[in-house]
Amino acid sequence: MAPVAPGGTIGILGGGQLGRMLAMAAAELGFKCHIYCPDTEVPAADVAAALTRAPYEDAAALAAFADGVDVVTYEFENVPAETARILAEHAPVRPGPQALATAQDRLTEKNFLAAQGIATAPFADVASAADLDAALAQIGTPAILKTRRLGYDGKGQAKIGRAEEAAAAWDAIGRMPAILEGFVPFEREISVVVARGIDGETAAYDPVENIHKDHILDRTYAPAALDAALADAARAIAARIVSALDYVGVMGVEMFLLPAGATPRLVVNEIAPRVHNSGHWTMDACAVSQFEQHIRAICGWPLGHPDRHADAVMTNLIGDAAGQWAVLAAEPGAKLHLYGKAQARAGRKMGHVNRLFPLGTRPPVT
Amino acid sequence: MAPVAPGGTIGILGGGQLGRMLAMAAAELGFKCHIYCPDTEVPAADVAAALTRAPYEDAAALAAFADGVDVVTYEFENVPAETARILAEHAPVRPGPQALATAQDRLTEKNFLAAQGIATAPFADVASAADLDAALAQIGTPAILKTRRLGYDGKGQAKIGRAEEAAAAWDAIGRMPAILEGFVPFEREISVVVARGIDGETAAYDPVENIHKDHILDRTYAPAALDAALADAARAIAARIVSALDYVGVMGVEMFLLPAGATPRLVVNEIAPRVHNSGHWTMDACAVSQFEQHIRAICGWPLGHPDRHADAVMTNLIGDAAGQWAVLAAEPGAKLHLYGKAQARAGRKMGHVNRLFPLGTRPPVT
Repeated sequence: MAPVAPGGTIGILGGGQLGRMLAMAAAELGFKCHIYCPDTEVPAADVAAALTRAPYEDAAALAAFADGVDVVTYEFENVPAETARILAEHAPVRPGPQALATAQDRLTEKNFLAAQGIATAPFADVASAADLDAALAQIGTPAILKTRRLGYDGKGQAKIGRAEEAAAAWDAIGRMPAILEGFVPFEREISVVVARGIDGETAAYDPVENIHKDHILDRTYAPAALDAALADAARAIAARIVSALDYVGVMGVEMFLLPAGATPRLVVNEIAPRVHNSGHWTMDACAVSQFEQHIRAICGWPLGHPDRHADAVMTNLIGDAAGQWAVLAAEPGAKLHLYGKAQARAGRKMGHVNRLFPLGTRPPVT
Repeated sequence: MAPVAPGGTIGILGGGQLGRMLAMAAAELGFKCHIYCPDTEVPAADVAAALTRAPYEDAAALAAFADGVDVVTYEFENVPAETARILAEHAPVRPGPQALATAQDRLTEKNFLAAQGIATAPFADVASAADLDAALAQIGTPAILKTRRLGYDGKGQAKIGRAEEAAAAWDAIGRMPAILEGFVPFEREISVVVARGIDGETAAYDPVENIHKDHILDRTYAPAALDAALADAARAIAARIVSALDYVGVMGVEMFLLPAGATPRLVVNEIAPRVHNSGHWTMDACAVSQFEQHIRAICGWPLGHPDRHADAVMTNLIGDAAGQWAVLAAEPGAKLHLYGKAQARAGRKMGHVNRLFPLGTRPPVT
């Protein structure tokens, strides 16, 4: 398949910060971007050549949009299957439908990983209150009940500390199709941002360690403090996942690291078929950021080298934290990224800051 | 004066690659950009929130544009004085009118530099053929006749090797108000990209060496191979210029380096009151690029540190050279920047590539 040449147009579903950073990376390579988004406020549109504001269910708008672009990608995994199907009749959609279908449904995702021989938390399908009782009997407590679809940043989840809490948890998630996940006694949360090109080539950035607050990513430490064998194993798991899905683009793979002595040490928590918050450090610490890497992949270009030229700590600016811009702007070595969002609501990702350190000198995780 | 806060809008006159890279740097800091440009093709508009396509003489369009932005800047020095005056009634224009007036006219510029005690080539005002003869008698040959206004990339210039060529040179530049510049027996051409903030703080990137082809910048080597005293002297000259002009923003200062033993060693060739092609290497080799630095300055933010984290060689992609994108995309460590221009005409700047090298290891100038 011929690559998309500079001057071509990339269609992006979703107009938030990920779409915005994808659009800027695409522009650096000479592409135009067309954003498709139903929202009133569309930060990505401020750096894109065109915007279609329409619902994801508007078949005519989708067709017109896809007819005008060379390739379609997306910034979020919950693209409706029918939306993807309509678009695919008019332009290549990358990553493809298999990746979307797999990542949109926690049960499908877990089954896919298990079929690849990749370790996950113990899990069971929960379609009813009776299923939940059976699943708890099998998996034990503590456990987490999660909706199969549309969960993110801790939404659609309920922790079950004791079996008696089952009914409340089932109510809390709205009695939706769900899975029960067993508790993984992890030591740290790490992730790997991996890319796969159209030719099957893969390239993974160094594994990083992630610290969450209130179920939202707060900080990423790059690289994670892992011995070389474990870091290689993490990269290999990520590469195996994108290869098995015949994936094209960048994917975030979240993993649990278990304490020394556990077998296996690495358990995959979840995959995100898109650029990933835990890859934002690559914007300033790598020659090719995850955003450029994604654009390269979906356009059929060779992947960039994922080498780091610095250590980095990425801190999300959530809600009011973005009000600290003046302090951050004055901090030597702090690289500020703001998303152009008007309202700093609680829990809303407003920007991030990357702090760089010479290789091998990043501060310890706190 | 209060700084422009994130969410504010920056007006940019001119829609070429410099405006485009300014707009992307502004977006990274959470600003919106509004481009004002009369051209049909406006690469900067593809990464900006708004575009006004109107002539620079359209007072109503200028007023409406400036009313909607928090600060106005520009990507080129030939903004008409009347345009700047109209805009300044509605919004701060940075850099200010004094810098524009000085840099737009080679005679004013040379007189300004001389008044600051900064060495330039010998020069004389040429308003007529008779003036030219007198100037040649004073300055000698070889010399270069240059129009006072609107020259760039070698346009509006004629070399005079012998006095007999004076009439032809006068015709060649269209008998426009001009200056005659004496020949400077330089060893190398260097430049300094310097910034000055609203509070008077200055910050200069390392001096770089520039190689031109056909009067157009071809390559920039960062840093220039200079001993520390000479590098400091070059930075000091640049800082003196922006301070004397009460300048706000980034300026490119081109200099000739004379051979060892000459006094002075550094002679200023010309100044550009804007981001400068010889500063494009900062996009990948510095924490804060010249584009972000300019946005910081005009918005009243603290300047970023101009430290280099790598050596760099910047190569312009001119005309057909941009057709090499596939080769450049596959070259490890080559950072490709394309400007989204449709037509690769001869002499047209289509993009540039930055090649990075660990500090102290850049290849020699060839």
